[in-house]
Amino acid sequence: MQQKVVVIGGVALGPKASCRCLRLNPDTDLTLIDENNFISYGGCGLPYYVSGEIQALDALRSTNYQVVRDPDFFARMKGFQVRNNTRALAIDRKAKTVRVRDLGTGQESDLPYDKLVLATGARPRILPIPGADLQNVFTLTHLEDAQAIRQNCEQGHVTDAVIIGGGFIGLEAAVALADMWDVHVSVVEMGNYLMGQVLPSNLGLMAAHDLRQHNVQVCTGEKTLQIIGQDGKVAGVVTDKQTLKAQLVIMAAGFIPNGELAQACGLEMGPRGAIMVDEYLRSSDPDIYAGGDCAAMRNIITGKPGYLPLGSLSNRQGRIIGTNLAGGQDTFPGFVGTWCIKLFDLAIAATGLTIDHARNAGFDAISVCVEQLDRAHFYPEKEMMALEIVVEKGTRRVLGMQGASQNAQGLKARVDAVAGVLQYAKPTVLEISNLEVGYAPPFAAAMDVVNVAGNVADNVLAGRFQAISAQEFVQLWQERATNQIFFIDARPKGAGKALADKYSEWHMLPLEELPDRFREVPTDRQIAILCNTGLRSYDSLLMLAKHGVTNVVNALGGMQAIKQMGLETKLQ
Amino acid sequence: MQQKVVVIGGVALGPKASCRCLRLNPDTDLTLIDENNFISYGGCGLPYYVSGEIQALDALRSTNYQVVRDPDFFARMKGFQVRNNTRALAIDRKAKTVRVRDLGTGQESDLPYDKLVLATGARPRILPIPGADLQNVFTLTHLEDAQAIRQNCEQGHVTDAVIIGGGFIGLEAAVALADMWDVHVSVVEMGNYLMGQVLPSNLGLMAAHDLRQHNVQVCTGEKTLQIIGQDGKVAGVVTDKQTLKAQLVIMAAGFIPNGELAQACGLEMGPRGAIMVDEYLRSSDPDIYAGGDCAAMRNIITGKPGYLPLGSLSNRQGRIIGTNLAGGQDTFPGFVGTWCIKLFDLAIAATGLTIDHARNAGFDAISVCVEQLDRAHFYPEKEMMALEIVVEKGTRRVLGMQGASQNAQGLKARVDAVAGVLQYAKPTVLEISNLEVGYAPPFAAAMDVVNVAGNVADNVLAGRFQAISAQEFVQLWQERATNQIFFIDARPKGAGKALADKYSEWHMLPLEELPDRFREVPTDRQIAILCNTGLRSYDSLLMLAKHGVTNVVNALGGMQAIKQMGLETKLQ
Repeated sequence: MQQKVVVIGGVALGPKASCRCLRLNPDTDLTLIDENNFISYGGCGLPYYVSGEIQALDALRSTNYQVVRDPDFFARMKGFQVRNNTRALAIDRKAKTVRVRDLGTGQESDLPYDKLVLATGARPRILPIPGADLQNVFTLTHLEDAQAIRQNCEQGHVTDAVIIGGGFIGLEAAVALADMWDVHVSVVEMGNYLMGQVLPSNLGLMAAHDLRQHNVQVCTGEKTLQIIGQDGKVAGVVTDKQTLKAQLVIMAAGFIPNGELAQACGLEMGPRGAIMVDEYLRSSDPDIYAGGDCAAMRNIITGKPGYLPLGSLSNRQGRIIGTNLAGGQDTFPGFVGTWCIKLFDLAIAATGLTIDHARNAGFDAISVCVEQLDRAHFYPEKEMMALEIVVEKGTRRVLGMQGASQNAQGLKARVDAVAGVLQYAKPTVLEISNLEVGYAPPFAAAMDVVNVAGNVADNVLAGRFQAISAQEFVQLWQERATNQIFFIDARPKGAGKALADKYSEWHMLPLEELPDRFREVPTDRQIAILCNTGLRSYDSLLMLAKHGVTNVVNALGGMQAIKQMGLETKLQ
Repeated sequence: MQQKVVVIGGVALGPKASCRCLRLNPDTDLTLIDENNFISYGGCGLPYYVSGEIQALDALRSTNYQVVRDPDFFARMKGFQVRNNTRALAIDRKAKTVRVRDLGTGQESDLPYDKLVLATGARPRILPIPGADLQNVFTLTHLEDAQAIRQNCEQGHVTDAVIIGGGFIGLEAAVALADMWDVHVSVVEMGNYLMGQVLPSNLGLMAAHDLRQHNVQVCTGEKTLQIIGQDGKVAGVVTDKQTLKAQLVIMAAGFIPNGELAQACGLEMGPRGAIMVDEYLRSSDPDIYAGGDCAAMRNIITGKPGYLPLGSLSNRQGRIIGTNLAGGQDTFPGFVGTWCIKLFDLAIAATGLTIDHARNAGFDAISVCVEQLDRAHFYPEKEMMALEIVVEKGTRRVLGMQGASQNAQGLKARVDAVAGVLQYAKPTVLEISNLEVGYAPPFAAAMDVVNVAGNVADNVLAGRFQAISAQEFVQLWQERATNQIFFIDARPKGAGKALADKYSEWHMLPLEELPDRFREVPTDRQIAILCNTGLRSYDSLLMLAKHGVTNVVNALGGMQAIKQMGLETKLQ
């Protein structure tokens, strides 16, 4: 008998699963429903439509060959029926039917299924604040949002915009508006730094510095209280610290999985109201699959259920569901949490747990952040790369890595290499030190920055030196009046002269001169050493140790990290 | 008692192991000897000095901070003695001494050791052909070679050069000479295509096409017989097919590990005369370590001893040896074989086994090569990427991946992600389909090309379609007079018109028109479908199958692969 499949949700996972199922089993009677008009669009591309990098909105719902993916396309080319503008109202698991309403006619009917796929996605969280319903308050989820935002910019209606929320969508939107439209953008983020859910503070500061360098105002640790309007339109945003002018507001305060249909029919739910699925991407009802932004999955690192709404996971999961709908037994292992984002000059990427995540999940963990050139130091083209590695103490198991660099693709290379290993093995620090990534001078250093991250974590775990972060160094410096620390600048001769001229506490002591000058270093106080990246200061520390000076801390990432975080001014 | 360590070899692994050992155990009495004058230089940078991208030769033997790594540097800053211009003559394992000769004074002496490190490297293979000793016949291993080659170019002595050998060094040298010095370069390679030891033929052809596009003459399947001279200087190269003019010849015909010292003292030797080591990087004598280009290690994929002389492996191994010299127990897992190279516009990278390696190692393997854009198709900046995946049939175990793209760093990202998994797990095709690499439109596609490589291998292994390579398609086309195959061009309307106008055998049948036109496809002959990358042709194949047309082959990589191999002219 011909199998009946109903798929609820027409973006990313839904169409992917449907196409795959039909490819494997062309006889399937498959119906996809979606309550919106437009389906199967690349939601991740919306910021690039806003910025103008993508010219026409249709590009986001077209194949590689400019064929628009509308219901007719799927019927004709893929062999299944799409009913857009059709809302799923309820699932009757006993009768195996979905109650749907045609939003055009208002007519309701029951769709029978043998297998059901929930691809209902997630919706942006709307803050319950006054003014949230004003004209020109947008989210950035649907094609229509992007179109309206861009039209407002094109028509010259927007000189100031406020983004509420400093996560992925918020920052991509900020870059799009500032870069293309010269809009003065402010990002208001309640957390203490940007992307705090997915980044450690140092990399969050680097993100903020890149935005500020391009005239985006970053307001962290600031709560949005109200959106104010004039004649029904947005006029500004009131936070707990200030009032910001705005003719346009984008709410990017996170997502809420659309799990209500599943919950109402009694399926097992996971974190944040997402549908819990097993490795075959089945919900607690084996005839109902779920995936993408409405589903929760096992976090491979913690072993616990987690939620990560990313288009790439949706697509890969869609293929698995399609295979299994057609009788296959493919599995999806869960997720480690790999992502990347491009800001202005800076790219940021990550995989696995941040130090905060790790500790919250119960790991006794440390993290170290290294800075190194991404290519051979003698090769003319190269960029700095910051990589933070998160490690469990006793086992030395690597739990995650986060990084930032202007070399976007090169950063992806390092993070993805670790992501793959995290996904299918439980690497230790030694295994990252030995990670066999490709090398040639135009691509990498022979001892590559990703290996060095492992090496430094190894040294810190082994107690070979006491590490402080570049942020901590800055803080120690600011507290120098009370802590009496002896600060050493171990960079090459001449570096730091301005600081040394101004402050007697700043001691220029280049690594090369240390063999002759170590007696200048006091033995009765703590020493803090800084260099350009943390490597020369490490050698300085070892050299001092040979001479019995052991109360020494080494600033990881050095001046490069300080500069990238925009903290250089705090030294002056 | 203070431990005595002797290290033989002063490039890459030797200094790295020595520095690490001294960092962990500053009391070590360590002596490094090297028969050359210059030590601790970045040999991988030599082509970039030849090309002029690196201005001064000292950059290759300097730290990040322009400090030259000479014997004094190591003594003063790192705490060990370097004796350059000193040759190791013999190892007495019973007495635990190394007989050395000072090449300046001729004086010989015995250096006692508790632990010995063999970091003797490899030497270029000199072909035993007449003329190999002529002036201006070089290898590219030492600083002096690079200096002499560049001087010859700078002085305008070189209009034509011949590179003997189409491997890494040969191709990097070819690019350097042609790119910077406008030298007319010919590469003579005995094998049927470039980099045949480490690449499948299709990617070897892509490498050749990139070189030819930049006026490098590529002579494959051609044996060098003689170098001819005039007044003691090179004048040309005679192959079994032609005589090439040349004022400069670079021999890049592979490397021979310097294993003689080890062999003479009875250590266990591995493939190609390299020193066999265990996971602690100890030779068969536990007091003698070896690593880098003189050592053989376990190939993780085959489980058998292998040899891979790469600077990146040397550096990582150096750290392990340094740790173990200082009493540690770190291990090195072996290698999977990850590398990358930048030609003119094209970068090539690989990890694990090629299809030929896999079959030679006894695997019943297949390979498929996919072509896809490296970023979201709607994102304005993007490049094609070719990825070949090698898979064992029954187990579906992934054995290797090779790729080519103009996006050098992005290619590295895909290959390194697979490299990490190959190193620490035994991934199947499904695990590459699910590989959680980072996604955002400026970095990747939601269903990324690396995942697609897994997907296509899955489909081929499952017998979902019959794949042929783009090369095989071209061959079928050339044999069309006898094979009677029906050729379909499934690209969008209009593509392939020139071919269709010229040849009645070339049928333009865009995927979109196939639902209405499938009856035009004969059922009594084999069908071969081509599109731009292999995706539309796959959908065409599935659509034909629905209508009972099943004798169909699909050209993987499509026209993109044909173009990148420079085979487009063979269709015309």
